[in-house]
Amino acid sequence: MPFTLVLGGARSGKSAHAQAQAEARAAETGGRLVMVATAQAFDSEMVERIDRHRADRGEGWTTVEAPMDLARALDALGPEDVVVVDCLTLWLSNLMLADRDLPAAASELVASVARFRGTLWLVSNEVGFGIVPDNALGRRFRDEAGRLHQVLAQAADGVTLVVAGLTLRLK
Amino acid sequence: MPFTLVLGGARSGKSAHAQAQAEARAAETGGRLVMVATAQAFDSEMVERIDRHRADRGEGWTTVEAPMDLARALDALGPEDVVVVDCLTLWLSNLMLADRDLPAAASELVASVARFRGTLWLVSNEVGFGIVPDNALGRRFRDEAGRLHQVLAQAADGVTLVVAGLTLRLK
Amino acid sequence: MPFTLVLGGARSGKSAHAQAQAEARAAETGGRLVMVATAQAFDSEMVERIDRHRADRGEGWTTVEAPMDLARALDALGPEDVVVVDCLTLWLSNLMLADRDLPAAASELVASVARFRGTLWLVSNEVGFGIVPDNALGRRFRDEAGRLHQVLAQAADGVTLVVAGLTLRLK
Repeated sequence: MPFTLVLGGARSGKSAHAQAQAEARAAETGGRLVMVATAQAFDSEMVERIDRHRADRGEGWTTVEAPMDLARALDALGPEDVVVVDCLTLWLSNLMLADRDLPAAASELVASVARFRGTLWLVSNEVGFGIVPDNALGRRFRDEAGRLHQVLAQAADGVTLVVAGLTLRLK
Repeated sequence: MPFTLVLGGARSGKSAHAQAQAEARAAETGGRLVMVATAQAFDSEMVERIDRHRADRGEGWTTVEAPMDLARALDALGPEDVVVVDCLTLWLSNLMLADRDLPAAASELVASVARFRGTLWLVSNEVGFGIVPDNALGRRFRDEAGRLHQVLAQAADGVTLVVAGLTLRLK
Repeated sequence: MPFTLVLGGARSGKSAHAQAQAEARAAETGGRLVMVATAQAFDSEMVERIDRHRADRGEGWTTVEAPMDLARALDALGPEDVVVVDCLTLWLSNLMLADRDLPAAASELVASVARFRGTLWLVSNEVGFGIVPDNALGRRFRDEAGRLHQVLAQAADGVTLVVAGLTLRLK
């Protein structure tokens, strides 16, 4: 604790914002900086994106990969850890592709966040401001992301919307 | 009066927000809670969505179905009524599919809202924050929704943007 | 100077907002109102859009067309000019279709804005709040737009988000 939800569009600077906040916190507390990365390198585009994110992060971060078992990854971290999970929409997407039970996974995540004692930023894409997707998978993904954001926003100590690298405080 | 426009993304909690506001108002004034629903049950996905919305609403609401004749539905309501219209983007979509004159329908709605004496929340999806849709219908829909929101926002006493269940006051 | 970035969705009223701000400024300073338009009339839909924008603008504006060489167009303007560039996403799109070097063009634009001595509004579509586009071109466009907005927002004196004709001050 505390736990902050960071929402933003694609390339909005939401990851950089969460990382900068975490680095400032770790500098204060001496805690360990942990990046819980949900990205999976399926293709060259994702490999490139992952590499660029890793390079942007620079030194000082321990990376934990958790494409699906996010609750378990959080449970393994301690109260001194300063943690950024990046990002929830990729995690949702991984779960959907693997045909996992999304409401169950969302409940597990919420429970895990509630019992987490470290400092936590959850980063996620706000994806609901476009026209209705023309395929059922896209519509389902958008619905699940929206529901997850609502539940987490309610539980969060702070919620920030990032637009063009700037922040709007929602909570 | 007063009239509030509630904008939000898909699954942002905009309906729940409008309903909670209306319920609080009705509890104060003793007015009748009226849901003007624009959804049409074309397929099983929509049937499910409509049922879920109805269940989320709980007791105490009178439902009026108005997939297209929204102005007429509002005109039939009284000054004591506490009304939520959910949602305008579905209404626009119904009109487009039926090949109705959209600017005329939008003008009728604006006129009807102006003469409405009850308390009113209009709920709508903000759909303009994605990339340009790859089909002309999607582009036209997005343009019409944007224009309608501007006209209504100008006339409204209050405008709220809902993100992850949280509200940003725009007016 | 000063330089303001105006972001908004499709049909959000972002152009009208920037124009109104510029007109108020020009009325104060007596400066020349210049519209730097990036739209290219490829097809009848774009011709109609361009005509409507021109009609909406009314008298008093000098229009400069700059579908790609935006930096050069800005460099040709003077310190008394009151300038709106509308819009950056169309400009990005033109550059992509012409297979230009986007990061280089973005750097040139940023440098040109930094040395510009007039008053400037840059209008752009926020396009990152939908689900991941299903084609690589759309994803690349969205990424480039997001990156450009971040760089410009950092350099800007003010950043405004327009929703339904209403403004949220981000900076």
